Formats: sequence, C-alpha cells, structure tokens
Amino acid sequence: MISKIKVSDIRFPLDGNAGSDAIHRDPVYSYAVTQLMDDSGITGTGFAFTLGEGNNLVCQAAEYYARLLTGRDIEETMASFGELFRTLSNDQQFRWLGPHKGVVHLALASVTNACYDLWAKKRGVPLWKLLTELSPEQIVNTLDLSYLEDELTYDQAVSMLTEQLSQKEARKSILDKGYPGYDTSVGWFNYPDEMVKENCKKALAQGFTAMKLKVGAADPDRDIRRAHIVREIAGDDIKVMLDANQQWNLPRAIDTCTRLKSMNPYWIEEPTHPDDVNAHTKLADAIAPVRLALGEHVPNKIIFKNYLQAGSSSFMQVDAVRVGGVSEFITISLMCKKFGVPVVPHVGDMGQLHQHLVLFNHIGMGHQALFLEHIPHLQKHFANPAKIVNGVYLTPQEAGSSCDLLILKN
Amino acid sequence: MISKIKVSDIRFPLDGNAGSDAIHRDPVYSYAVTQLMDDSGITGTGFAFTLGEGNNLVCQAAEYYARLLTGRDIEETMASFGELFRTLSNDQQFRWLGPHKGVVHLALASVTNACYDLWAKKRGVPLWKLLTELSPEQIVNTLDLSYLEDELTYDQAVSMLTEQLSQKEARKSILDKGYPGYDTSVGWFNYPDEMVKENCKKALAQGFTAMKLKVGAADPDRDIRRAHIVREIAGDDIKVMLDANQQWNLPRAIDTCTRLKSMNPYWIEEPTHPDDVNAHTKLADAIAPVRLALGEHVPNKIIFKNYLQAGSSSFMQVDAVRVGGVSEFITISLMCKKFGVPVVPHVGDMGQLHQHLVLFNHIGMGHQALFLEHIPHLQKHFANPAKIVNGVYLTPQEAGSSCDLLILKN
Repeated sequence: MISKIKVSDIRFPLDGNAGSDAIHRDPVYSYAVTQLMDDSGITGTGFAFTLGEGNNLVCQAAEYYARLLTGRDIEETMASFGELFRTLSNDQQFRWLGPHKGVVHLALASVTNACYDLWAKKRGVPLWKLLTELSPEQIVNTLDLSYLEDELTYDQAVSMLTEQLSQKEARKSILDKGYPGYDTSVGWFNYPDEMVKENCKKALAQGFTAMKLKVGAADPDRDIRRAHIVREIAGDDIKVMLDANQQWNLPRAIDTCTRLKSMNPYWIEEPTHPDDVNAHTKLADAIAPVRLALGEHVPNKIIFKNYLQAGSSSFMQVDAVRVGGVSEFITISLMCKKFGVPVVPHVGDMGQLHQHLVLFNHIGMGHQALFLEHIPHLQKHFANPAKIVNGVYLTPQEAGSSCDLLILKN
Repeated sequence: MISKIKVSDIRFPLDGNAGSDAIHRDPVYSYAVTQLMDDSGITGTGFAFTLGEGNNLVCQAAEYYARLLTGRDIEETMASFGELFRTLSNDQQFRWLGPHKGVVHLALASVTNACYDLWAKKRGVPLWKLLTELSPEQIVNTLDLSYLEDELTYDQAVSMLTEQLSQKEARKSILDKGYPGYDTSVGWFNYPDEMVKENCKKALAQGFTAMKLKVGAADPDRDIRRAHIVREIAGDDIKVMLDANQQWNLPRAIDTCTRLKSMNPYWIEEPTHPDDVNAHTKLADAIAPVRLALGEHVPNKIIFKNYLQAGSSSFMQVDAVRVGGVSEFITISLMCKKFGVPVVPHVGDMGQLHQHLVLFNHIGMGHQALFLEHIPHLQKHFANPAKIVNGVYLTPQEAGSSCDLLILKN
C-alpha cells in the first residue's frame, strides 16, 4: 500500500554551454520528482523534465495528483491503470489548465512514472522485463485510449500486441546485443566549430554511428557550415541528424532545409512550432525526400494522432517525461506502430527510463530497434546510470525503471 | 512607471449547479489576477480564468512575468508590445512548460490584460475606444505574429486594418445600439428539464434571441430530449446553440450530432477534444450543413491557424483570458477575418473584457457584430459589471477594460 508521498524540485545547472539549442540558450536540467513510498519499504520514483524555472509548479501539481494515490495497492492500481489515468487527467477543475498539456500533464507524467517504477520494484524486475512479460490485455488495461477511438480501439490494441507474441522470443536477442545509441552532444548550439569537430571524432571513437547537431542560427550560413563540418568528419556512412528546436517559421524552414539537403541529413528535427501540424505537412512536401522528426514538445496522444494522420513526420520522438508518462508513451507507440512510423524518444530522462521503454517497444510491439538518444550530462546523479559501451545501451538489470537520483536516496 | 505588482488568487464558488457542463460538473469560477500599480496612482488589472484547483499555479507564473515589467513605462511598453509578448512567451526556461499553452500561457494572459487595462486607464478611455483610435501600425505593433508568417505577415496585417478605415465611422453606430448578447445559462448540464424550460422563457422575456444548452450526456437520449425542449419553447426564429464541452469521441460525435440535426442547432460547440483538428474536419464533413464552433480550450494562435486552414469550424470562440491575452486575441481575430470566420468569444471573463474587444473587432476590423456570450454569475463581484438590457450589451463608458474586482479595490 502506498503510505507516503514525497515530491522534490531537483535542478542541475550544466557546465559550459552543454544543453544549449537555438531556442533554449541557458537551460537548467531539472526534474519534478515524485516518490511513492510503499509500506513494504519500497519507494517508486518517477519524474518529469523541465528546463528550470517553473519546475516548482510541476512539483505542486504532481503533489496534487500523488495525494490521490495514498492508500492504494500498486498491483491493483496497475491492473486498471488506464482508468485511473483517465480519471486523473480529466480531474474536473485541474483539466481547465490543459487539457492534457503543460504543467498539469508534466505533473501527471511524474506521478505515472513513479507508479510504474514502484510496480517493477515490487516485482523485483527491471521495467522492460515487467512490460515484456505482461499479456496484451494487461498492457492495454494500463492505457487510456479515449479520444483515439477513430484510430485505436481497445480491441485493436490487444490484437496488435497479440500478433507480436510469436516473435517476442527471437527479438529478445536485443537484450544481449544492447540497444543502439546515438550521440546528441557533438554539437550543442553554443559550441564553437573546433569543439564540434573534436566531439565528432570522439563520438566516432566511442563507436557511435549516429550523431546530432543543433541548427537554427539567425544566420543560416552558420547552420550550413556546421552541418558540413560534421558530415565531413563523420563520412557518408554515419547518420547525422539536424535539430532546429522550433526556431524557424514555415517559409524560413523551407529555405534552410532546402539548403541543408546537400549534406544529406538523416532527419531534420523540430523545424518549427510543435503545435503546427499543417506547417509540418507543407514543409515535408516541400523538402522531400528529406525526412522530419518531432515529438519532444508534442504534449499528448491526441496531437501525435494528428501528426500520424498527416503523415509528415518520419520519426516520432515521444518523451515519457513530457507526455503523461509511461502509459501514454506506450499508447502513442502503439499508434506509431499502426502507422508504420518508428519511435525514437527524446530523452528528457537522459535515457534512464527510455532504455526500458524502447526494449519493450521492440520486443513486445515489434518496433524497429533503430537507436536511442544518449545525453551524458547527468549520469553522475543517477543511482544506476545508463551504461553506454561501444555506442550501445547495455540492458539494465536492476529492479525498477532506473530513475532513482542519488540526491534523494536515504 | 510600473512601480509595484500584485497577483491574487480569487475564487468564487457557484450556487446550484450553475456553470456545470458534461466535463466540468463542479467548477469554481476563479481568476488569477495581476495588478500593475503605476506610480501615478493608477492600477491596471487583468486576469486569466480557471475552474479552481491550480489557480494558484497560474498566479505564481503570472508573478514571474509581472516582475519583469517593474520599472517600465506603459505607453512605451505598448508601443512595441508585440516584441515584449514574443520575449515573455519564449522565456528560455519557462517556455518548456508550454510552449504557449497551459499554466504559463494563462499567466501571460493575466499579465498582458493588466497592461492593456493600465494603458486605457492612463489615457482615461474605455479599452474599446483606445483600440478603435489606434492606427493600423500601432495595433499591429502590439501583436506577435511569429509562426504565422505563412498566413499573416506584418504588412498584410497592416493592410487588412487599413482597408477598414473608411468604414469605421459608420460602424460606430453599434456603440449606441449596443452589442447583441446571447444567454448561456438557460441549460447548464445539471439543470433539470423544468428549470431549463423556465430559463428559456426568462431569456426570451429578457429580449435574448439566442441561447445555449449543454449536451454531452452519457445517454444521448437526454441530449436529444433537452435540445427539443429548448427548440419548442424558443420557436424556430431563435438561435439555439448546443455545447458538448469535449465530451464525445469522434464516432460518438458523428452519431449524436446527426441525431441533433432535427432540432436545427445554430451551432454545435466543442464536440470533441480541442487539440484534435483532424477529428473536427471529419466531423464537419459528416454532419454538414450543421456548423461547429470551438475555441474555448484552444490555447494559442498556432492551433487556431490550423483550425482556420482546415476550415472545419464556422465560429471561433477565442477567449482573451485563455490565449495570451488581448494581444493574441486580436492576432487570432485578424486571422479569422482573413479566413472569413466570425469571432464569438468564450467569456471566461463573464464578458467584462470581451465587450470591449468585440466592439473593436467590429469597428476596427470589420468583423460581423454577431453576438457575445452572456454569463451573469459573477456580476456582483465586478466594480463595473457589464450591463445587458433587452438582450444587448450596453457600451461600457468607464476608463479601462472593466476588469476591476470589488474584492481587490482599496
């Protein structure tokens, strides 16, 4: 039984321009952390990610939701978590502040993720293992499919998972091989050219076969120059992704993306405003065959559904510490699977939670094991930091979702 | 110069099921109020609207923005308010909590509206008069048109307003006639049939020629029955609007809206989730010629742009205490004008602020003077409550935007 809750506002200033992009020049990586203490002595930990200011608001909203969980048994709760999620996310007064977006939805992510962590810890297994061992019905019972009835009903979701059952064993080979990573940190926005060059070489030496550069400069020539620097060092076989972090408007995005074609980007990420489904459609048409990626700022399953229906984004970067947590992440992954679009999460969690989720997406849902973003900046703060060796995430073995922070231990 | 700021969390419990709808059964009408005190002794008041829980979060975010205004001169600030709006709404850390939606955007509305109120009070004129006397350039300088470049540039916005100049004088006849109102309170969700009947009769006696009923019941037969009750009492010449407050999913909306055709609704409002642009397109196609209205929960100009481009909504219910305040309201109204869609605001402000804005939309922008929602529940709390006589809003004459609350006076 959940007997106590604790919500903490944890902020980690970054060193030397790490984390900077075209829009966010001075981020403070921060977590609104929910801890659910079980009377058996086990603590479930979950969080949402922010960039600093306002992290306290997410914490206050998380406390509101978390209080509603006091006295609940975690196994019973997770047996029908989809219903609980629906109830919490439609809280009659709180709902006005979204619905299903912004501070209240980030807060719901924090609480939801703590539930999944507690669930896995109580069973004594890593979250990926718990998820891959659930039956299709048990999985779908943790999901809230409301407002998706035109694309994904309960029965359709169960069928999709059932179809994958026969291939689960074979796909478990990923557990030994490790899930491929890609290096996001070769070219943060404020890094000078020389540093980008050095970082590219380091990434190659570390075994990465994919890496990302921040673009979206006031002067597009800077973007073009830096993109070609990375391509030159990386060579033609390495995947190089470009990330504009919403900096462009549509006409500007069409111009600059067209110029960037020449360096053959694997994708161009967040070219414009994350709410602008229609602009992405027009852009994708204008710059084909260059592909788009987005999702880092898409707040919920409903806008993801709209992007999938529009067909403009070739990679969906849903983040379980942005949308309403693991439950909504799985819901969105199911829709992506239906539409044949790979899920490549943004990792506000620094990959700690998502290393579990992509294993489930591959083994249980049949998603391609493409690669998972790797951001190393907060590794020293986690009790069980993700291990990336030779460009590959080693499969986590500890119980839970790997989200415990050292500062909150003891 | 703005020398002091004050942000207040004001909540008004409602009596006897007033305000109830299919989703929000127990609202507490609440305002996150920003007051900007000028060293000349004048106080500008603005607010965002919520349903209670979490109003404090909006207040905290508003305080963050309001602090940034201390020391500013209001005339100078408003001369280029669009730039300030862009800066505030893209605050590098706060932006993560949106962007441009949820708690942070509600907070920006509160602060923005206080600026406009202070501006009008300093000039000693009602806000509608201030706005209608500004030049096209002065108006557009208060707007942030970023991410709208594909539909509305600075020059296009100035041209649109300039084209209206010759007809402004003639349109000022609305000031004497008064702006038509419609009665939202005949059929709140929890009201029993008898009460709905009585309210319809009262509304007719008060001179209203348009009224709204809440639908979205678990049993669609209840919706059909109540809708026909209102139509029967109102007669064929009265406009009757139906409001589902997002209760339906798409298949359900198609079914129930089709059944509701028989009572000839003037519009069906918020049939499904406000983020689901595509679902509204499919619904509008399926139930034509029945028309849709929405906007109460649409958080920003970008999603409004998507709805306008999709062409699914025949009435746009933008609310200046939901989107980022007066500035963004005018931006969205300009886009609506371009697309030929009438603006019929949702009035989280109980019409206090919007009575000014619709007058400007009509006189300065050439929007049709259709009607403005009337909700009487909080009238006694305003220093200058809106006056509705014979179903018509009388033109406010006091300086400012009519948003002062008695509880915050003195």
